[in-house]
Amino acid sequence: MPKQRNRKIVMASRPVGAPKLSDFRLVEEDAPEPRDGEVLLRTLWLSLDPYMRGRMSAGRSYAKALEVGDTIVGGTVNQVVASKRPDYAVGDVVLGYAGWQDFATSNGAGLRKLDPGRAPVSTALGVLGMPGMTAYTGLSIIGQPKAGETVVVAAATGPVGSAVGQIAKIKGCRAVGIAGGAQKCRMLVDEFGFDAAVDHRSATLADDLAKACPKGIDIYFENVGGAVWNAVLPLLNDFARVPVCGLIAHYNDTELPPGPDKTPFLMRNILTKRLTLRGFIVSDFVAHAADFERDMSAWLREGKIKYREDVVDGLDKTPEAFIGLLSGRNLGKLLVRVSDPAK
Amino acid sequence: MPKQRNRKIVMASRPVGAPKLSDFRLVEEDAPEPRDGEVLLRTLWLSLDPYMRGRMSAGRSYAKALEVGDTIVGGTVNQVVASKRPDYAVGDVVLGYAGWQDFATSNGAGLRKLDPGRAPVSTALGVLGMPGMTAYTGLSIIGQPKAGETVVVAAATGPVGSAVGQIAKIKGCRAVGIAGGAQKCRMLVDEFGFDAAVDHRSATLADDLAKACPKGIDIYFENVGGAVWNAVLPLLNDFARVPVCGLIAHYNDTELPPGPDKTPFLMRNILTKRLTLRGFIVSDFVAHAADFERDMSAWLREGKIKYREDVVDGLDKTPEAFIGLLSGRNLGKLLVRVSDPAK
Repeated sequence: MPKQRNRKIVMASRPVGAPKLSDFRLVEEDAPEPRDGEVLLRTLWLSLDPYMRGRMSAGRSYAKALEVGDTIVGGTVNQVVASKRPDYAVGDVVLGYAGWQDFATSNGAGLRKLDPGRAPVSTALGVLGMPGMTAYTGLSIIGQPKAGETVVVAAATGPVGSAVGQIAKIKGCRAVGIAGGAQKCRMLVDEFGFDAAVDHRSATLADDLAKACPKGIDIYFENVGGAVWNAVLPLLNDFARVPVCGLIAHYNDTELPPGPDKTPFLMRNILTKRLTLRGFIVSDFVAHAADFERDMSAWLREGKIKYREDVVDGLDKTPEAFIGLLSGRNLGKLLVRVSDPAK
Repeated sequence: MPKQRNRKIVMASRPVGAPKLSDFRLVEEDAPEPRDGEVLLRTLWLSLDPYMRGRMSAGRSYAKALEVGDTIVGGTVNQVVASKRPDYAVGDVVLGYAGWQDFATSNGAGLRKLDPGRAPVSTALGVLGMPGMTAYTGLSIIGQPKAGETVVVAAATGPVGSAVGQIAKIKGCRAVGIAGGAQKCRMLVDEFGFDAAVDHRSATLADDLAKACPKGIDIYFENVGGAVWNAVLPLLNDFARVPVCGLIAHYNDTELPPGPDKTPFLMRNILTKRLTLRGFIVSDFVAHAADFERDMSAWLREGKIKYREDVVDGLDKTPEAFIGLLSGRNLGKLLVRVSDPAK
């Protein structure tokens, strides 16, 4: 049997500002051979998420930065194509972290078997996976929503934002979503059931948001930063909570914005309104994984939570899709279909 | 009997930037007469606290802004000199909120009787009062100190800061104080038992603080803002907590500092280090008043908590003393001795 070939996308150069196609390179090599205790995984689905931009920068983030030549990291749904482990059989579908490539070996650490009969396996990368759990834990643990409160989330058609808004509705809150453009804003109200939607590209963003939040904002789920945050801050009510989950507006920044330095304004708001700002990543809340799986699965079955996937076909399209993600060109959870499962 | 005369200090003009003596005016008038259900109070001690600067500004703060002509507000220890209430007798000493004046009437709302045999009554304005409870609640409820952690507090010789550091020591933490000048820094270590002290006037503040916190900072009790906050932020550990209690470095600001706008840097730190910043005022935590009184009284009796008072004699000296407070000229809890108690 001829050796399988593996395609992988490596960081060709460290992006400065917005990543360019030339910052990535597709490399072909022989697929690895699983050793005793390992499985060989073929990638079915690759998840594209904003946090990956942070890993491409040299500065400190949650985890070690990628180096030039490294395969880009990412969550994946994989199928086992060879197994030297008793607990995995060829054909099993698993949630993994194989990154931007066709094949990877694994010693089983961090893998989780998926049941294709329970839900489409791609949802393990979205509504039933990391983005869904990010929304669930950040909103419930830090946001602590109470019925009647107003919850605002930006990047609201994305997999985190759309779940935040829908969970807020389940908790009896008013859900206001911020997104880019009329199509996304319509989707928020018509498809995801938000009470109101505001277009962050509007020149009247601050006024639009104030009108959408007549009783102020009690929870702002922060995915974005930048101009949206500046519009939100004056509307926050006393004792508002701000789970800080992402800052996509800044991921491509190469320098700080011009002055004045508004830090004292932010600190003064924190003080006088007794705000809580708290950063988190979903792995901080692993203790809540069972709660998340129970609740989110039930809400999906009951039709209380909807999700939307934006599927790109082919590993070679990954860099372009990722660049688009950072400027909001996707509509829903962005996934790359890398290969189809073997029967 | 000739009518008692009341001196009161009113806001003559709204301060712009640092208050000037001409922003205040001493007015004399007849003392008020207590009506049925009221007591007449004579001020013994007047507390001067940084928050008063906020009340002199037109902008939003916790409470309604003072208007030109209003008597400046403030916590006081008073003696009852006439009573038309059955629950107060002439001679009783009470904690009140009579402001910058000799006499005031009260219907009893908000008054609390003090026992001069238990502790010097002035401590009801300091270590056993609002500043002490601010330190206790902010540190314990928001800071959640754990043994072995590093706690940093600025304005550390003040009544809040000195209590924060000493409570941190009781909880088994490393306590690092920031204060202005060598005398205050010595006092932190020699008198209040801090592990280290850093002079915020030093040109090497950031380096000095880093050396004083070899394991980073787990809790920063924010009283100050400005340059101190800029030095603290890079040293905060993952999951650090920042009770935001005051921002005295900014109270006299008339505009924001020059750029760049460092807000994204702060938000990025909140995100990647999973910081918690939470503003509070002591009245948010009234439910914890009994805990505070029990613990703080015990610690005082046991000699585990020390306090220092900086006493100014005479109501007429109040504006000058208050202006000095805002630039850190006091050494310990700043009090005005307005009159001596009648026997």
